Formats: sequence, structure tokens, C-alpha cells
Amino acid sequence: MPIDLNCDAGEGYGAWRMGEDEALIPLMTSVNIACGAHAGDPLVMRRTIALAQQHGVAIGAHPGYPDLHGFGRRVVPMPPDDVSAWLLAQIGALAGVARSLGATLQHVKPHGALYNVAADDPALAEAVARAVLAFDPALILVARAGSLQAQISRDLGLRVAEEAFIDRGYDAQGRLVARGTPGALIHDPALAAQRGVALARQEPITANDGTPLTLRAATLCIHSDTAGAPALAAALRTALERAGIVIRPLATILSD
Amino acid sequence: MPIDLNCDAGEGYGAWRMGEDEALIPLMTSVNIACGAHAGDPLVMRRTIALAQQHGVAIGAHPGYPDLHGFGRRVVPMPPDDVSAWLLAQIGALAGVARSLGATLQHVKPHGALYNVAADDPALAEAVARAVLAFDPALILVARAGSLQAQISRDLGLRVAEEAFIDRGYDAQGRLVARGTPGALIHDPALAAQRGVALARQEPITANDGTPLTLRAATLCIHSDTAGAPALAAALRTALERAGIVIRPLATILSD
Amino acid sequence: MPIDLNCDAGEGYGAWRMGEDEALIPLMTSVNIACGAHAGDPLVMRRTIALAQQHGVAIGAHPGYPDLHGFGRRVVPMPPDDVSAWLLAQIGALAGVARSLGATLQHVKPHGALYNVAADDPALAEAVARAVLAFDPALILVARAGSLQAQISRDLGLRVAEEAFIDRGYDAQGRLVARGTPGALIHDPALAAQRGVALARQEPITANDGTPLTLRAATLCIHSDTAGAPALAAALRTALERAGIVIRPLATILSD
Amino acid sequence: MPIDLNCDAGEGYGAWRMGEDEALIPLMTSVNIACGAHAGDPLVMRRTIALAQQHGVAIGAHPGYPDLHGFGRRVVPMPPDDVSAWLLAQIGALAGVARSLGATLQHVKPHGALYNVAADDPALAEAVARAVLAFDPALILVARAGSLQAQISRDLGLRVAEEAFIDRGYDAQGRLVARGTPGALIHDPALAAQRGVALARQEPITANDGTPLTLRAATLCIHSDTAGAPALAAALRTALERAGIVIRPLATILSD
Repeated sequence: MPIDLNCDAGEGYGAWRMGEDEALIPLMTSVNIACGAHAGDPLVMRRTIALAQQHGVAIGAHPGYPDLHGFGRRVVPMPPDDVSAWLLAQIGALAGVARSLGATLQHVKPHGALYNVAADDPALAEAVARAVLAFDPALILVARAGSLQAQISRDLGLRVAEEAFIDRGYDAQGRLVARGTPGALIHDPALAAQRGVALARQEPITANDGTPLTLRAATLCIHSDTAGAPALAAALRTALERAGIVIRPLATILSD
Repeated sequence: MPIDLNCDAGEGYGAWRMGEDEALIPLMTSVNIACGAHAGDPLVMRRTIALAQQHGVAIGAHPGYPDLHGFGRRVVPMPPDDVSAWLLAQIGALAGVARSLGATLQHVKPHGALYNVAADDPALAEAVARAVLAFDPALILVARAGSLQAQISRDLGLRVAEEAFIDRGYDAQGRLVARGTPGALIHDPALAAQRGVALARQEPITANDGTPLTLRAATLCIHSDTAGAPALAAALRTALERAGIVIRPLATILSD
Repeated sequence: MPIDLNCDAGEGYGAWRMGEDEALIPLMTSVNIACGAHAGDPLVMRRTIALAQQHGVAIGAHPGYPDLHGFGRRVVPMPPDDVSAWLLAQIGALAGVARSLGATLQHVKPHGALYNVAADDPALAEAVARAVLAFDPALILVARAGSLQAQISRDLGLRVAEEAFIDRGYDAQGRLVARGTPGALIHDPALAAQRGVALARQEPITANDGTPLTLRAATLCIHSDTAGAPALAAALRTALERAGIVIRPLATILSD
Repeated sequence: MPIDLNCDAGEGYGAWRMGEDEALIPLMTSVNIACGAHAGDPLVMRRTIALAQQHGVAIGAHPGYPDLHGFGRRVVPMPPDDVSAWLLAQIGALAGVARSLGATLQHVKPHGALYNVAADDPALAEAVARAVLAFDPALILVARAGSLQAQISRDLGLRVAEEAFIDRGYDAQGRLVARGTPGALIHDPALAAQRGVALARQEPITANDGTPLTLRAATLCIHSDTAGAPALAAALRTALERAGIVIRPLATILSD
């Protein structure tokens, strides 16, 4: 099984920068670009799309709750149908900028609090799926591996890429261990890379209660805001290549 | 010659409302919908598109300078190429929301300060034209009748609808008399309606220095933020119909 | 017992208006002015303070969650200590503008979701109280009559004015019946005015389960965003005056 | 003559950071803190004030044009009187947060485009001065050395600290050479430090046309967004100390 590597990018705003896009994007096969609601603006979008194109990396929309100050990391309470409208506008904004560079979107991956809530909330999951389907039914949704959202979205006819995290702890139900809790983060690049290989092979990893957990991920996420993310990504690539695992963009994996 | 009637709409934001969309949109054939930069948000966009659909009114994007507080009425100094990126994101956002309602965009009309500056500034006019062409070469650009922008955009291959204002004074060069200056506004609905008939017939109107001015407008604008705009629009429709002038959407006029 | 009448004001933003400040403020004795986070901007603040001064109405800060799009009506999840910082900046902003007009603040009344959550949440209530005390211990906090917040704030040494609503239904615990629920709103001005008289006299009103409810309010709130608010306020004033109840600003009531 | 060293700080926003406040602030005697309009938010303000207090550095307000996306580096066209209102709200916001930490403001220094325009524009200079005087006549205004603004503000009764830049080129009139122009920036820390000593001694420096230019600066600015700013500041401190020049906060210098 081939695997895709994705990271978030384009999360600056105006004069502010976030993450190390220049170093990290070349190591990815897919990149999730902020759409102006939690981060990003049309100039950052354009710069980020061009960077991805330059390195042959597939692009996707990374829409979030409309909350620049909170960086999309806190829930903005709103009806699911309103979330749909916000997603459509964000995906559309990025697609509009992409069009001027001759680029098209491969996927959509919700950001931050929206990613987390939609993973387990059926109404929100459906709202996200309907927005993506309405925008373009050929788009791939990236969702947490094993989540209710992955299943609901697939049932609604959406192409879904399940996603796993190489540097985060999981509980036995396949949920991420909350940041701030012991075991939430894997800091050792070698360990994270090793975990990435297991995930790519769909071999069980160890959940935080010691039980084995099998995730069927088509893509592995590198957190772009972790210090040392480029080094971690390089270590992961090396480990995957040594293990004979092909790294390629989502769209080519799902169409197999 | 048939004529199109257009107004701005969807210029609320969150809890705030602006204009009388419900009363005005049914009297138009084309409507310019704010895209979230100077006004509008995805929920307002959706509501406004649905309202236009309900009344069979064609929709267009109404992008502006990114300045909610200034409502797009003041210039935000930026390079023309950055204006392009902002336009692409705004047109894309509206088109994204429209897609979920099965609607497509007919036209683009820049808002406020951007409309005014682009009319006479070749670099900005070209930036606007390139953004619209990149997004969709079938879109119609609405520009001030007789403006440099109309000519530049046409030379670049864009479909252009020239626009005239029934309730604003013109100088001999076809520029609008600045608000606050005597003769800037025509308050009498009968006079404005009469002016609308002359403009639709491409008969000369009288500029503020008394000289005759002929504008070749395909669309007439009703300012949605003028008090009494619906009454003015109704008077205009009646006058046009009495004069035997057909009122229909831009796209059908330009394709004649 | 004298009573104060308060309403929210200055809730426009840039080109957008909200409420009928010009008609409503002259009928009040205290006015709560938005501070730029949920609504309001320095120009609106200045205009609103000047309007209050012109009619001899006392002014207060009306800080809210930082969420222009949501108008402060939805919770922005954040630690209580961060709410304190946001309140200090908002109260400070309004006080800064007021200073240039020779005006000083009489009170602070949290807005929308913050008002509701702080009323019952001890940690948030304390955060609000500490912000107000840090800014100026002479300021009066307006809080829901009978709320935990009123008690906590008083215990912390703050001057507290308890507040009741003439046009809203109450449950037996003194909480407002949620909007959208039967009995949430009292539409009849005569009934609302009559209720205002009972509240001013600290006579029991009838809760939504039929039981009597006594609130000890020093101020009555008129919702400025209710249609017909000025008419309602006028009816209330007449009823209070007929009942021999003196209407005067909070500060003069609390210092009795 | 003693000299003050100042830098901008607190120019992050939400999750975004800007500059190296932790390294730079301890090397200053005064720090200009963003107030939420071009950068900064109440949490960043609080953190930055606390950092300054910890190192015994005096704090001032650094208000700018309200334009987060443009970081206050572009002009927002507005009447001078509206600039006053925006300044009052910004200074008030920072002062409000400062109050909760027992801190008070020493000075006000306009940011970015506002700093540059106000230096030479009498109406804007007066608007700035009136805002500062209305807020607190004891505040010191930091303005470009030799500017019209310095003189106008002093004439209006304001305490003014004239400011010079150690790493920027000057023209013969004492204006900064525009960024992007040859000679705009002095990259060599040794050269910049040497220039700082000359400026502190009020000895002439060489303008970009070769003529001598004498500036009477009470404070020297270190650009916090220059790479290597802390190293530059350290070099400057060493050079000043070797030259026997006392480094101390503005307020103590102006009261001499």
C-alpha cells in the first residue's frame, strides 16, 4: 500500500508567518492550505499554492471555524448548516485563487476544532460532507482514521481518505489523546517515524492503555506547527522508503 | 435596445443589515452580491443568492477592498497584483456558496473605492480584468460607461457591460460628480426615472456643465443604500416599460 | 425606591447601524455602550457617548466576547483570566474615548453570551468582577437580579446593581426563559410596563410556572434591538411616573 | 545627556508571534506596545506589559491605523478627528490592561504609516497630539526628531521625546530614506552602534547626500522586526556605555 504525507500550510496572515512551509512542503505529497477563516489570506494562499506547484505537491483546502484570533482552535457554536456555508465560501476562495495559477484542489481537510468536532458529531460530519459534495463531488475528504465522520461521509458518496498522526498518542477508540495529557505527543523523531511505518503498513500501533489499535490510513499528517517538523518529516520519509513504502499523493492512492 | 437593472445586495454582516434587499431585488434583473471583504458573509451570501433565485434575478460578485470597517469605501493601498488575488478569493467564495444552491455567476462588479479607482487606473483595471478572466472568461465585467476600464477590459478579451447611474450627476467626461458636491445626487424619482429612459435609449443626458453626454450603458444601477430605493426602482421600471424598453438580464443583452 | 432604566447602545460598526439610539437614549437614565469586541468602534463610541451626554444619561461599558460576526451572542471558549484581559481592554477603550469628551463611566454590564454565562458561572463571574475592580473599584457592575454573579461580585467588594427585564419571561429560579421558548417574550407594551412597575416596587411577578418571583432590581433593561423599543420605553416611563416611582441613574440609587 | 532606548513589542496576534520580545525588551529602557488595531490583543498586551515590568522597562502605547491585515503599514484614509478617536480607544485599551498589573503608561508612539504621515502632516499631528493630551497630559509623545509633528505637539503643550533611528539612512531634511532605496538600511551592527553614539551625543551624522545632519534625539529606536535586533541592541548598549552615555527611561530624561 502506498501512503500520502500531508501537512497544514499557508497559515500566516498579513505580516504574520506560521510554520516552515518552505522547508516542509517539499517533503509532502499533499498540503492543506488555510482559506482565510482561521488563518490565511489571498496573498498567502497564492504564495502557498505556487510553492506546492513548484514541488509537485497536491493541494487541498483547509477550512476552519471563522475565528482568526482563536486560530480555529476553539469551537464557534453555530448550526451545522451554517458550517456548510462557511466551508463552501472557504473552499471557493482557495479554488478561486488556485484557478489563476492553473491549479485545482485535490482534497478538503477541516482544521482544528472543526476537524475534531466533525470527526465524532454526525450532524456536523454530514454538514461538512454536503458542503464538499456540493462544491465538487470529485474532491477527497481527509478525516480521522476510523471516525464516524469517515463512515458518514463515505455513505453520502464522498471519497474519503482516512488520516493518522505519527506524533500523537491514541486512545483505544482511536481518538487522539488530548494535548496536555501524558502520552499526547511523541517527541522522538525515530519513534514517530517508526510509528509512521506501522501506520502505513496498517499494522497495529499501541494505544495509550496498552491495547493494539489498527488504523487504516491513506495519509499521514505531519503537524507543521511542531518545532522540528521538517526534520521529523525527513526522518519519516527515510523510514518509509527503507520499508519499501511508496509515498504518493492521495488522489493516486484512492483511485487505485 | 433592452436594458438591465442592477443593484448591490447582501451587504449585511453577521447581525447587521444594510439596504432593503427583499423589496429591491424583485425589481432588478441582475444583482451584485458582496463577497465578505467589504461586507457580506457566507450566510448573507446564501440568503441573498436564494432571494435572487426566487425572483429569477441573475447574480454577480461584488468584490471590494478588504475593509469591513470602511465598507470598501476607502482605498486600501496595495499592488494591483494583490488586488487580483483578493478578487479571485472573493469571487470564488461567492461562487462556492452559489454552487450549493445550483446557481452560477453572471457577472462581476467591483465595489465602492475599487470600482472608482479601477475605472480610471489602467494598472488596476488590468488587475481586475485578469482576475475575472482567470476565474471564468465567460463572466461579464460591469464597469462605468465610457471608462478607460471598460476599454482595457474589452481589449483583454473580457465581456464588458457598461453601466450608468440614474440618480447621480455626471461631469462632461462621464465621471460621477463627487458626493457632497452640488448636483451629485438626483433626489426626484420622476427625474431619475426620466434620466433612466434617456440612458436606456442611449440619448444624451446633460452633464453638470450643461453639455450633452452620451453613455452607452447596458445596465442601469439603483443604489441600494439610498433611502426610497425600492420606490425609485419601481418608478424607473414603469417609465422604461411605458417607453417600450425591454428590461432583461445582462447576459441576454450582451449575447445579442 | 427609585429605579434606573438602561438600554444597550452604540452597537453599530463602521457603516452598519443597530437599534434606535437617537430615540431610545433620551428615555433612559443609564446606557450600556458597546466597546468594539462584539460591536462598536471608536467612532460609534464617541457618537454614542456624546448622545448620552446631550440627554444627561449616565454611561457604562458593555463589553462582550470578541466576535463581531456573532455579535457576542455565542460563547467564545476561553479561560476566565483571558476574559478579564478582554474586559479590561474594552472598558479601557471606551473610557479612553469618553475622556476626550469629559465623560466618565458609571457602570459595566457584560453583553450577550458573556452576560448569561457569567450570571451562573462562579469562575467567570469572578473574572468579570476582578477586571472591573482592577479598572476602577468605583464602577458599578450590572448583573442579573438574584444571580450567583451578583452575590459573588458583591462579596469581592464590587458595587452591584441587580437588573430585571420587563419584556422577558422568567422561570421560577429567576433565569430568563430562552428565546424561542413559549413565554420568552412579552410583546404587549402595556403588560411589559405593568411588569416594570411591579419590578420597580419589588413586588412579585409571575414566573413561567405560575409561581410568584420576587427580584430586587435597581435597574430595568429595555432591549434596544426589539422593534418598537422607544414606544415600549415611553410606556414604561409613563407607568412608572404614574405609580410615583422616581427614575434616576444607577449611581444615585446605589449611593443612597 | 542620557539617552533612552526603545523598541516595538507585543506585535503578535492570537496564535501569531512577531519579533523577539523576550530577548529584546531586557535591553531597552522603554517599550512601545501594540494596542490591538494593527497588531496585539489583550492577551498579548498583558504578557508584554508583564515582561516589561519584570525587566524594569517603561511602557508606552503603540497605536496604529486599524488594519490587522496590513499591520498598520499602509494608510487608512480617514479624517484626522477619526484618527483621534481610534488613538484614544487604543491607548485606553492598553492602559486598561496595564491597570490590572499595576502599571501605567509613560509614552505614546504612533506606529508605521501613522508615524510617518503624522510626522509631516500638521492636521494629523494635531489630531494625535489632541488625543494624547485628552487621554493624559502627562504622557510623552515619541515623534521623529526634527519633525513638524514634534514642534506642533510641543506647541500644543505636549511633552515630546524626539526619536532617531540607528539603523536607517536619513536625507538632508531629516526624513528617513524609504525602504527599498539604496542607503535606507544600515546592516553593520558596529556602524549602527557608532551612529547611535553620535546621535546620543547630538553630534552630526551624515545624511544620504553627504551633508551633516544634527538630530536632537532623546530616544533611539531599535527595529524589533529586523533580524538580529537583540544583537544590534546589545552592541549599541556596549558602545553607549563605553562612551559614558547613561541609558535610562524617557520620563527621567524629559523631567531633567
